Amino acid sequence: MSAVSTQGKPAVQQKVNPLEKLAKALHDDLAAVNAIILDRMRSDIPLIPQLAGHLIAAGGKRIRPVLTLASAALFGYKGARQHKLAASVEFIHTATLLHDDVVDASDQRRGRASANALFGNEAAVLVGDFLFSRSFQLMVEDGNLDVLRILSNASAVIAEGEVLQLSTANNLETTEDQYMQVIGAKTAELFAAACEVGAVIAERSSGECRTMREYGQCLGIAFQISDDVLDYAASEERLGKSLGDDFREGKMTLPVIKALQHATDKERRFWKRCMEEVKQDEIDFKEALRLLQAHNALDVSLETARQFAARGRQLLKDLPTHPLRNELAELITFAVERDY
Amino acid sequence: MSAVSTQGKPAVQQKVNPLEKLAKALHDDLAAVNAIILDRMRSDIPLIPQLAGHLIAAGGKRIRPVLTLASAALFGYKGARQHKLAASVEFIHTATLLHDDVVDASDQRRGRASANALFGNEAAVLVGDFLFSRSFQLMVEDGNLDVLRILSNASAVIAEGEVLQLSTANNLETTEDQYMQVIGAKTAELFAAACEVGAVIAERSSGECRTMREYGQCLGIAFQISDDVLDYAASEERLGKSLGDDFREGKMTLPVIKALQHATDKERRFWKRCMEEVKQDEIDFKEALRLLQAHNALDVSLETARQFAARGRQLLKDLPTHPLRNELAELITFAVERDY
Repeated sequence: MSAVSTQGKPAVQQKVNPLEKLAKALHDDLAAVNAIILDRMRSDIPLIPQLAGHLIAAGGKRIRPVLTLASAALFGYKGARQHKLAASVEFIHTATLLHDDVVDASDQRRGRASANALFGNEAAVLVGDFLFSRSFQLMVEDGNLDVLRILSNASAVIAEGEVLQLSTANNLETTEDQYMQVIGAKTAELFAAACEVGAVIAERSSGECRTMREYGQCLGIAFQISDDVLDYAASEERLGKSLGDDFREGKMTLPVIKALQHATDKERRFWKRCMEEVKQDEIDFKEALRLLQAHNALDVSLETARQFAARGRQLLKDLPTHPLRNELAELITFAVERDY
Repeated sequence: MSAVSTQGKPAVQQKVNPLEKLAKALHDDLAAVNAIILDRMRSDIPLIPQLAGHLIAAGGKRIRPVLTLASAALFGYKGARQHKLAASVEFIHTATLLHDDVVDASDQRRGRASANALFGNEAAVLVGDFLFSRSFQLMVEDGNLDVLRILSNASAVIAEGEVLQLSTANNLETTEDQYMQVIGAKTAELFAAACEVGAVIAERSSGECRTMREYGQCLGIAFQISDDVLDYAASEERLGKSLGDDFREGKMTLPVIKALQHATDKERRFWKRCMEEVKQDEIDFKEALRLLQAHNALDVSLETARQFAARGRQLLKDLPTHPLRNELAELITFAVERDY
């Protein structure tokens, strides 16, 4: 059992993963998207499909393309434009992942085999650029300037969020507002754009496009806060990766910011050493976890996520009645209540 | 005097730099482009204008935006669309520069203060992404799908060229064909796109757009070969940077490929140690230069560049008579005959 689910929250029905239900309902669409993804990561330069495949072909959760597909279907769109656009959204995400993992020499602490660790920083950066360009080529083929505007704006906002995150890393003074600004940009913006694009190609009113966009934003924020909590508290076995990556990098996420708000001087010195100076012993992660629990910081963080989830569910009520609408409501609940 | 100009070539009239003449003729346009560049690199995240300014505001040669401006003017275009598009082209170039300088820990040999050395790899990558996104936002504002297609294709080709270059680095088996493929993609593609865009917004025939594009391609290739020769043979004082960067990185450029074609076994072992194993002593650069000169490799490389310059001048004859046409002819000559 995870540290989170032991704290008196209702047990989650783990057998129902709404993302899998969505993927099943959108099976044919998703197969079309995957075919486009595989087709467009081809290149005469072998290193490109090799490295891109390391991330893409392995098949991630595909949550962003699923959002575009679900949004288009929810709004009754009948064509096939959502396939290229969903692939485009996934390429932006993959490019961001590749670039996110590029680290400075002094920062190579993470144990996992990221693309940059396997292929080198330079290759990861350049293949990311290639996928980013491919993403724009797909949008240009679609040919809708509104879509191009939404996704090019999203790309710029994501990059700004990533740069802001750099400035907050290892900085104990990072505020809750700054944290929300970072995740609103680096994570929620692409969720929002992915949702909005589906409504735009269905030619819905600007109000409906905005509502769908805002649902995506809430989902992205809820999802990211939960992710940041799970980095301290997930069930390691189910998560499939080790805990504590954020801690080891001195990344200022919401749980730490919440714990710092009530920290004693001694605790503050602990966080300063671990997060700012990044001088950590083996036992420090356990101590961090103890402090987070002592200040109830994980639950308080999840409470913030739950507020965004509630807002997201509320927004869905203004959208057309459709089986997928229920799935999207379950998805945003799951984003917060999962334990992996 | 440089190693190149001592080899019996006609002296270049260094007082006439055709790029400066073009910049003077297009002064008002270029001022408008610079204003857009400064405006669009703004961000609430201070690190972004700070890092971007390190490269952009310092004011590079601006050769690519000048090409877009010159092409539009040459074809009699009377509007203002070329300004945003020239800025867009410069942003793509700057993003590429930032990403090009990202190095792996083991590769940090270059002495100069590149953006990544000053700000770190992560920041250089992310600000590059931001500028790349800004570039697409500018194109989307322009709203022409042909232009969007040309520049998004160019971005993908550039990224492919950069990845191919990675695969050829430190590889003595790199062929002349592979070298031409690399520079055709990483350098000439953006020169070509910059030229083509000017003709496209002037709504010229597809034949004229193609001719202008091909001129840009020839210019880019001539320019890059010359650059690679100058890295061994420029006048250091005029170049403003130290020689031998390519050599120290084991970059397989045309002069080395040409010298290898006639290398003795002993010379081959020298190149293998220096370029593949990157084991170099202080005196090795001098020895490399001696071998390049013994095989006439610098002049033979420049001869290839001169052929592209001649082809470029030939292409210009099919374009409208215009004072700028002469400047463009001088520019492609200068690209090869300069000694810095």
